[in-house]
Amino acid sequence: MPVTIEDVAKAAGVSIATVSRALRGLPNVVPSTRDRVLKVAEELDYSADPHASRLASGRTMTVGLIMPLTGQWFYNKVATAIEAVLMEEGYDVLRYSVESVEQESQVFRKLIRRKRVDGLVFITIAIDPESLARLTNAQLPVVTIETETGIFPAVTCSNYDAARAATQHLCNLGHREIGLISGLPDDPLHFGPPGERKRGYLDVLARQGIPVRPELDVPGNYSLAGGAEAMATLLSVSDPPTAVFAFSDEMATGALKTIQDLGLRVPDDISIVGFDDHDFAEYLHLTTVRQPLDLMGETAATLLLRLLHGETDVPVRTELDTKLIVRATTGKPPR
Amino acid sequence: MPVTIEDVAKAAGVSIATVSRALRGLPNVVPSTRDRVLKVAEELDYSADPHASRLASGRTMTVGLIMPLTGQWFYNKVATAIEAVLMEEGYDVLRYSVESVEQESQVFRKLIRRKRVDGLVFITIAIDPESLARLTNAQLPVVTIETETGIFPAVTCSNYDAARAATQHLCNLGHREIGLISGLPDDPLHFGPPGERKRGYLDVLARQGIPVRPELDVPGNYSLAGGAEAMATLLSVSDPPTAVFAFSDEMATGALKTIQDLGLRVPDDISIVGFDDHDFAEYLHLTTVRQPLDLMGETAATLLLRLLHGETDVPVRTELDTKLIVRATTGKPPR
Repeated sequence: MPVTIEDVAKAAGVSIATVSRALRGLPNVVPSTRDRVLKVAEELDYSADPHASRLASGRTMTVGLIMPLTGQWFYNKVATAIEAVLMEEGYDVLRYSVESVEQESQVFRKLIRRKRVDGLVFITIAIDPESLARLTNAQLPVVTIETETGIFPAVTCSNYDAARAATQHLCNLGHREIGLISGLPDDPLHFGPPGERKRGYLDVLARQGIPVRPELDVPGNYSLAGGAEAMATLLSVSDPPTAVFAFSDEMATGALKTIQDLGLRVPDDISIVGFDDHDFAEYLHLTTVRQPLDLMGETAATLLLRLLHGETDVPVRTELDTKLIVRATTGKPPR
Repeated sequence: MPVTIEDVAKAAGVSIATVSRALRGLPNVVPSTRDRVLKVAEELDYSADPHASRLASGRTMTVGLIMPLTGQWFYNKVATAIEAVLMEEGYDVLRYSVESVEQESQVFRKLIRRKRVDGLVFITIAIDPESLARLTNAQLPVVTIETETGIFPAVTCSNYDAARAATQHLCNLGHREIGLISGLPDDPLHFGPPGERKRGYLDVLARQGIPVRPELDVPGNYSLAGGAEAMATLLSVSDPPTAVFAFSDEMATGALKTIQDLGLRVPDDISIVGFDDHDFAEYLHLTTVRQPLDLMGETAATLLLRLLHGETDVPVRTELDTKLIVRATTGKPPR
């Protein structure tokens, strides 16, 4: 016969209402009592009816992460950091992978309609105005990472400054023909950071009096293979770049392979700077920009918890610092 | 005023019962009718009461993944493949990161007690006998990956054969002092694959008449840094190995850095074989064993769907092939 809530109440020596409150994580239960109830429920293997309990609280204790390219290192790193904080607080976390702003809108409309989550974190993907209105109407707590709405708290890192530092580092070494391996060609996700990075790169070129050569900006799809191909393209233009700034370490790693396969040397023939400080970057001696991805995820999760707890004085924008890490893939230009 | 199920039924020109069945994904609704109902519900922004609907079906449409080291490439790769298949079928997927067999048991007991999931996938972690009994009693569909219970369907790859192929490759090149960078020192997760791989390695040594030297087996914690340290340890023994077989590509990459930092050359001074065929392996020219991780995840997800659909003739064991990929980090021993 299944264990009932009465059995738990009896064994714990408290009222049924107290068991119910304790199991639902509601306040006004003395912590020591709550612990005793949870322990007894665990020992008796008591299954609360989750539907009834959730119906009563109106909460799902679930948070959704909406992000593209789930399989990639960057997203897994940020998502893992978010999950660690939220799960510690008793939330379950669902990852949703979307490939365009349109698909994103469908996914979260479904989540809202099904009352599936208590809150959402959007990672890097922009939110279109209609969707913004919908999210606001649903009064769902939302935090964004590396994309800004002006409405929901955003966690970002200093992409503009980071790109300036990377480009300036190359200029200081004497480079003037500096290529870019940027992200997605049609930008189906309306990413913010690549635009900020490009702006930082262009501002340094302007200050240095270096003319902009549009053929030196080649998309690399944020992948190893894309970076390798982009590098081949950059080396095929007349007067090719002596240095390349890639918007991810995966793309920088792809570029390194192309250079090596062609019998060229890094940094003697060509310098490479990446972006992220991927776990592998140190092992590849890659000069790169370090993004504090764990901190980014933790900060976003903490902001979301504050919203879930009903706080209203949450900062609308939190910018985290990046750091240029100079390793062995950058040096003076050849000749 | 909120949109009701009556509004949807009226707009779609069907009965309330049909709307309910269509929205709950139940059979006996003509596909074209179902599509119309879903479209109308979407247009009207109808929110079904998920509690009522789930209560009625007794299903959560959620699957839990239980795995260690969530942040690591291997787990993210497998989990992403599982998610793609299950989400296509309308399931949400929760990832649970656990650090020991004890913690694992707590996590899934809680999941069972809270009736939180319709099924579970265990990745690499062993399940203790008491927990096995509990899972069996709960009649929850379970599939395991790279760990075997004899009860639940298991998806694994040919770890023993893979290790034999890797070790034989090194012997064929002329190596006799072959080190191992294995996994976790105390094995808190009771991993199966490392034991299988060690057995494959030992069997090849025995066939070749090569004496076993226990000091040549050093744990590397499945991390880049751990691999780097393990390599330093291996190079510090008297009569150090001329070749090393690492049980993950991350550890092999760490080993490569140590070798390079010491001014030694790969493969002239020392050969390295990894395991996984990590996305980066090709870019590091790493000789390794390819595991079909996407296929592993897809196969496990498909088996779980079959269990969720009530099928009983599901194979208890599916072994997928691995493949030795020879690149540039292996060669003849020095002298």
